[in-house]
Amino acid sequence: MSEFTWSARVYWEDTDAGGVVYYANYLRFLERARTEWLRARGHSQTGLAVDPGVLFAVAEVHIHFHRPARLDDLLTISCQPQLDGATTLRFKQQVHRDGPHGELLATASVRVVCVGSSSFRPRRFPPAIIEGLH
Amino acid sequence: MSEFTWSARVYWEDTDAGGVVYYANYLRFLERARTEWLRARGHSQTGLAVDPGVLFAVAEVHIHFHRPARLDDLLTISCQPQLDGATTLRFKQQVHRDGPHGELLATASVRVVCVGSSSFRPRRFPPAIIEGLH
Amino acid sequence: MSEFTWSARVYWEDTDAGGVVYYANYLRFLERARTEWLRARGHSQTGLAVDPGVLFAVAEVHIHFHRPARLDDLLTISCQPQLDGATTLRFKQQVHRDGPHGELLATASVRVVCVGSSSFRPRRFPPAIIEGLH
Amino acid sequence: MSEFTWSARVYWEDTDAGGVVYYANYLRFLERARTEWLRARGHSQTGLAVDPGVLFAVAEVHIHFHRPARLDDLLTISCQPQLDGATTLRFKQQVHRDGPHGELLATASVRVVCVGSSSFRPRRFPPAIIEGLH
Repeated sequence: MSEFTWSARVYWEDTDAGGVVYYANYLRFLERARTEWLRARGHSQTGLAVDPGVLFAVAEVHIHFHRPARLDDLLTISCQPQLDGATTLRFKQQVHRDGPHGELLATASVRVVCVGSSSFRPRRFPPAIIEGLH
Repeated sequence: MSEFTWSARVYWEDTDAGGVVYYANYLRFLERARTEWLRARGHSQTGLAVDPGVLFAVAEVHIHFHRPARLDDLLTISCQPQLDGATTLRFKQQVHRDGPHGELLATASVRVVCVGSSSFRPRRFPPAIIEGLH
Repeated sequence: MSEFTWSARVYWEDTDAGGVVYYANYLRFLERARTEWLRARGHSQTGLAVDPGVLFAVAEVHIHFHRPARLDDLLTISCQPQLDGATTLRFKQQVHRDGPHGELLATASVRVVCVGSSSFRPRRFPPAIIEGLH
Repeated sequence: MSEFTWSARVYWEDTDAGGVVYYANYLRFLERARTEWLRARGHSQTGLAVDPGVLFAVAEVHIHFHRPARLDDLLTISCQPQLDGATTLRFKQQVHRDGPHGELLATASVRVVCVGSSSFRPRRFPPAIIEGLH
């Protein structure tokens, strides 16, 4: 199973008045890691929307928040995709804080469906994207 | 079981280049409805942070995205809280599009823990907040 | 000169770890008021993008931040449009905190250009939108 | 005069239904560059809030939007600070799209005031931060 990681710094924009990262913003970090996983395989979502004309729609997110991230933290977001039929990918994702303790901050499972960029109906993932996954 | 609903308009800020509401932003709509549910019971989170010194931390979100919301849509967000022990509330939440069809766009379950506003350790919910819930 | 106002509540999503509304998020409040000004005149941006095929692009923002807005504040955002040639509107906008003191929090000037929704080139504003403005 | 640059990728979270970066989100990119300029000088805002107990409050932003940024664009944000009295810094900032044409997308002037982190009253900038600026 392949694993991919991406880093993100916590800026003011990510935090809320509780002094920690706003809960919805973890989903932004998760999405950046998935996008960069795809880019690392040689694909951009802009390109795929044109040829072969597909988008990746998030159908389900299940996330547990273990510890809060704070301003200036450097985060490592992991991304471990698994095929679930021809039209669905399930990503296991984790968010860790960088540093000596490397604490686990959040754990998520994200279900993504490949859809036609005009029809919005399920389509098979392009073979080049899912090559080597199982 | 009590149900509460709140409305939100979809503005440019909520959408993404796919032409629909960005997936993380549904969590903002869900949070507005929970905040307004609390306000409807006579409490503000700013007030509760000072007296009795508690915050509500989201520990878990499980959300299914059924259909996309779009610019200019008027959304109705429901919020149905249930007690789960002395320190935890589970909210069943739904997002519908207003209009003749009233389509269901998203369904979520959100687990919120009451914590001390300095200690961040679990605390019992203030009785006034959970009165009448079960 | 016409003036229009719109209200917005400050939620967790709007704040940052400084305990106040994040500076970029005032631009969201300003945009909501401009959108609702347009809706009050009977137009939606979704509709105008299709017929007559125009979008409103922000070309310039000049904003002064006087006092911070905080969680739970109810804000009033004003919007005073003035024509500046056939393709440009200038909006004078203010953000006040509701309440006995009604403090002025921010003052902005926003220049909006009417552009073709495919060409992105300047177009005259549809007459129905600018009727009665000067 | 010192110049500093920082890079940012455009993700889905940054875009809106117009297919371009939402206008308020340029202010996030500008802030990331200012924060990283400070970090490059050896300071974090989290640290400065504790010792010597100062925050940097944005008092004014003047921004011109020249061309839209789009999904997947890599942006370069520049940051050129100038002292304006003992308590104020003015940042000239630009956003360029990376690539063969290196187009200028936005130009901004941002006025930042040093304030006490509890008092919120103007304070002199710590000497270490403004060393070498004029």
